[in-house]
Amino acid sequence: MEKNSAIYKIRHSLAHILAEAVLELYPHAKCGSGPATDTGFFYGFDFNGGDTPGESDLNAIEKKMRHLLKQSVIPKQEIITTNEALKRFETSPYKVEILKEKGAENNDKISVYTIGKFSDPCSGPHVKATKDINIKGFRLERIAGAYWKGDEKNTMLTRIYGLAFKDAKELAEYDKQQKESKERDHRKIGKELDLFTFSELVGPGLPLWTPKGTLLRTNLDNFVSELRSKHGYSSVTIPHITKKDLYEKSGHWEKFGDELFRIKTRENKEYALKPMNCPHHIQLFARMPHSYKNMPQRYAETTMVYRDEQSGELGGLTRVLSITQDDSHVFCRHNQIKEEFFKIWDMVDTFYEVFGFELSVRLSFHNPENLDNYLGTKEIWENAENSLREIAEERKADYVEMSGEAAMYGPKLDFMAKDSLGREHQVATIQLDMNLPERFDLNCINEQGEKERIVMIHCAIMGSLERFTAVLIEHLSGNFPLWLAPEQIRIIPVSETHNEYAQHINNELKAIGIRTSLDDNNESMGKKIRKAKKDRLPYFVVIGDKEVEAKNVTLESRRGESKQINLSALANHLLAEIDTKSIT
Amino acid sequence: MEKNSAIYKIRHSLAHILAEAVLELYPHAKCGSGPATDTGFFYGFDFNGGDTPGESDLNAIEKKMRHLLKQSVIPKQEIITTNEALKRFETSPYKVEILKEKGAENNDKISVYTIGKFSDPCSGPHVKATKDINIKGFRLERIAGAYWKGDEKNTMLTRIYGLAFKDAKELAEYDKQQKESKERDHRKIGKELDLFTFSELVGPGLPLWTPKGTLLRTNLDNFVSELRSKHGYSSVTIPHITKKDLYEKSGHWEKFGDELFRIKTRENKEYALKPMNCPHHIQLFARMPHSYKNMPQRYAETTMVYRDEQSGELGGLTRVLSITQDDSHVFCRHNQIKEEFFKIWDMVDTFYEVFGFELSVRLSFHNPENLDNYLGTKEIWENAENSLREIAEERKADYVEMSGEAAMYGPKLDFMAKDSLGREHQVATIQLDMNLPERFDLNCINEQGEKERIVMIHCAIMGSLERFTAVLIEHLSGNFPLWLAPEQIRIIPVSETHNEYAQHINNELKAIGIRTSLDDNNESMGKKIRKAKKDRLPYFVVIGDKEVEAKNVTLESRRGESKQINLSALANHLLAEIDTKSIT
Repeated sequence: MEKNSAIYKIRHSLAHILAEAVLELYPHAKCGSGPATDTGFFYGFDFNGGDTPGESDLNAIEKKMRHLLKQSVIPKQEIITTNEALKRFETSPYKVEILKEKGAENNDKISVYTIGKFSDPCSGPHVKATKDINIKGFRLERIAGAYWKGDEKNTMLTRIYGLAFKDAKELAEYDKQQKESKERDHRKIGKELDLFTFSELVGPGLPLWTPKGTLLRTNLDNFVSELRSKHGYSSVTIPHITKKDLYEKSGHWEKFGDELFRIKTRENKEYALKPMNCPHHIQLFARMPHSYKNMPQRYAETTMVYRDEQSGELGGLTRVLSITQDDSHVFCRHNQIKEEFFKIWDMVDTFYEVFGFELSVRLSFHNPENLDNYLGTKEIWENAENSLREIAEERKADYVEMSGEAAMYGPKLDFMAKDSLGREHQVATIQLDMNLPERFDLNCINEQGEKERIVMIHCAIMGSLERFTAVLIEHLSGNFPLWLAPEQIRIIPVSETHNEYAQHINNELKAIGIRTSLDDNNESMGKKIRKAKKDRLPYFVVIGDKEVEAKNVTLESRRGESKQINLSALANHLLAEIDTKSIT
Repeated sequence: MEKNSAIYKIRHSLAHILAEAVLELYPHAKCGSGPATDTGFFYGFDFNGGDTPGESDLNAIEKKMRHLLKQSVIPKQEIITTNEALKRFETSPYKVEILKEKGAENNDKISVYTIGKFSDPCSGPHVKATKDINIKGFRLERIAGAYWKGDEKNTMLTRIYGLAFKDAKELAEYDKQQKESKERDHRKIGKELDLFTFSELVGPGLPLWTPKGTLLRTNLDNFVSELRSKHGYSSVTIPHITKKDLYEKSGHWEKFGDELFRIKTRENKEYALKPMNCPHHIQLFARMPHSYKNMPQRYAETTMVYRDEQSGELGGLTRVLSITQDDSHVFCRHNQIKEEFFKIWDMVDTFYEVFGFELSVRLSFHNPENLDNYLGTKEIWENAENSLREIAEERKADYVEMSGEAAMYGPKLDFMAKDSLGREHQVATIQLDMNLPERFDLNCINEQGEKERIVMIHCAIMGSLERFTAVLIEHLSGNFPLWLAPEQIRIIPVSETHNEYAQHINNELKAIGIRTSLDDNNESMGKKIRKAKKDRLPYFVVIGDKEVEAKNVTLESRRGESKQINLSALANHLLAEIDTKSIT
């Protein structure tokens, strides 16, 4: 959110007005601080020594805010010295603390804003007048405890959160999207569709994938593999552990820090669980000398990597300890970089288009002020980043550059996918690496018979299968296209007398590779159909007297279409839809 | 080897005669001990205080042995008291040490054998007369150091090893098999065919699989998956780590001991790398209640497990830290055990027949004297073992029973495969487990609506992919059948002018899914053909003027057959051979 945008100013001013309202209703409250957020604002208070408001008091506070807003005041900025400010805010211990940190020593000038009766050290910006704030565009949302400055050694303050948008319509849209997000939550749908589960004994962040979930993963992974094999990629296989030596040489031992799962063997040797696959794949590449004739070498592997995350940060599939990457490494010559990048870019475009995602591009560069976090020299980084920029230009991509988002070994070209709710997710990534080839002395023998330093391109199309699956479930609300659906079609006989014919249809479809099932449970038609819909099946087929007699079936789609169709037409219909990977 | 067999007696007597020969040639030598081995015999000596023989002295010792044998003596047994023996062997410190351990305190009676001039405390048995030993049936093999009693705190003795068989013919056969084994060594062929590699930085016991090796694994695994999917198995996916809690409940934390790779997280929680998949799969099964209608549930997963082996024990693919199991778990009712076992048995038969392995069966039962090593009660074990015996009987299998070879949770039905060199390898395993369902309280809801305790059947068809691949490489000497070969056919143009047509053939075969390659290197025909043979390709195709003109190819098989064939006949030939999984 731009600091100078209208909505930022509205949210920021509302934080001040919230403070003013709270101070009027709870005069004993001490103000902490309160910024604008991506969806509104909050303010933190210390209510010690008097009443603390609860959720049921939010209405009253909100009413007071609206009352203040109706008076329409003009926010007033003053520039005063820190000493003057310390005097003015002497009864507000948290303000005093901040002022002292900021510049009390030098008695710097600071900015103070006053809106109505409430003053706050604050550099703005704010709305020109409070009448610019639509009183139907905001709502107080919730109350939560939060340590002062996020440090658990400090006092727990009470934060009041509000939502704020331009007007009532935008607020309603946000509410709707929130409701939709909640209904589409991948944890909820994942359970409903029986895709994955968690076990308390195994631990959080370690999903267990059911037969249906595994089919989903396999279908996705096969799609990526097909694309890759067209471009000359080969699969390789590595173990999940390594001696410390590999990571000392690669730099992971030093740079990966706490996130590395470390192991001591019975012989007291140090090993680690791999957090990345590159060093292992490098060892594969380095098993023999390579002629320029055999370059590039392209290795792909879908495999789990492990990162030791804090348990509080784990949730659903979006933050896990066991991360399945559809990883690949291209070892190529400098003059092959562009072609290899474009090949990958084509694959990424094809892959995401199939699901109806809109892609945008971010060039994730290193932070020059923090060179210690990275491997290699300034020159290598500039070189690699220039190559990336050139590639993006040549591809005529609409891209943004972000400092500090690079991998430890090189800059990244990251793809952001916009989902059907308008949310952005980082998905595919292509990374240009001139550092690891240097550290591991990777070469090919060129036309002159000389050793030539090569480069590496790291790429994951889905990124993490766990995160991509979560994004996809929410994007499609669990309505997977036919080619991807773990269960593609269900055969529903109306009553027991139709079981035999239903079984026949089921067998015939199975024989041509359709993932079909037969629901011959002794239950009512209505119940079976409701179940098929709840299971979000692309298709189900109903078989009663009419169908048995006409030797056809009634095909019902998830979208509500219904038609009579014979077996061979049904088979062709399904196979064609699978083949084209249509979105249903 | 039976202790009363003729060959055992021959080998045992030869050990004594070796000692006699050594003492005549090296009178300062002190005798350690020397048993018969599976292929001959050895004896350990302390040569301190005089000359130590080297490999070049083996001939002279062997000659002395033959000389002694020609004198034909009758081995003589005496039973004397330990005190008498201590006196008789007082100049032999190692003998004294053994005698003292054996029964010096009680002055027990012991057996002493004398052959020629050499006496040894020894309980026999020996040949009746040394003329029973064929002097052309043995040979001294090598010299190696070994700590006295295998304890590195003791003196290093010098061991002299010999080979011994019934006659010269058997010895020659053994030599031939050894030579053949050496040529077929999977480490040698694995390197020649570029299937896998090891990296010093990653560490021993952690193979890295190349593109070709990964294809080999994938083809094998797909074969198992096809068999399983016909029998209603579904794939599932689990992570490689777990909280300690899972293994405390399963018993692995306690019973697996040193072999478990243990991990401490940044939050100081204890995790482990999985040495087995069963507890994770159990958590998957337990995610929901199961009706008897949905039993059995069959989960399959090819995944790596990790066991912390001593580094000295690691070698090639036969002993690794990262073990890929083609694992499966059937959760079924008691009355379904037999049917499920038979299904698996069918799959095992089909799988091994394709490669021409001969199978035999071993029932691996628990050791009743060591109940502490196992989970569960005596009753559960007897129950499970009786079921297994019944199944083997009903299958009319020729089986042996082995005590002490069970898994920690249940008895096993192990399959032994005899390879083309006549060597036996333990391969597939089916295990009946009534203990883990008890520990994890696994049930289904039966026809009466009651909870019913279920059982588990653990099974791996290949066992470990690493070990199976090693066995298969040596069994086939790297000559993989067409369906399995990473590279199925190679197109060899005679000269540059044939490249275009060769490329056409290559593309056409690729388009129908054949793993083909084009060798258009600027090298002589002879060299290219030698390379194709060395790479053990099932087929290669030569294209010269004649072929271009006739619009066909010359197809050469690994076996030396050669024929002219057109493209469509070639395609059909290859596809049919792949489809039937023929051995070529």
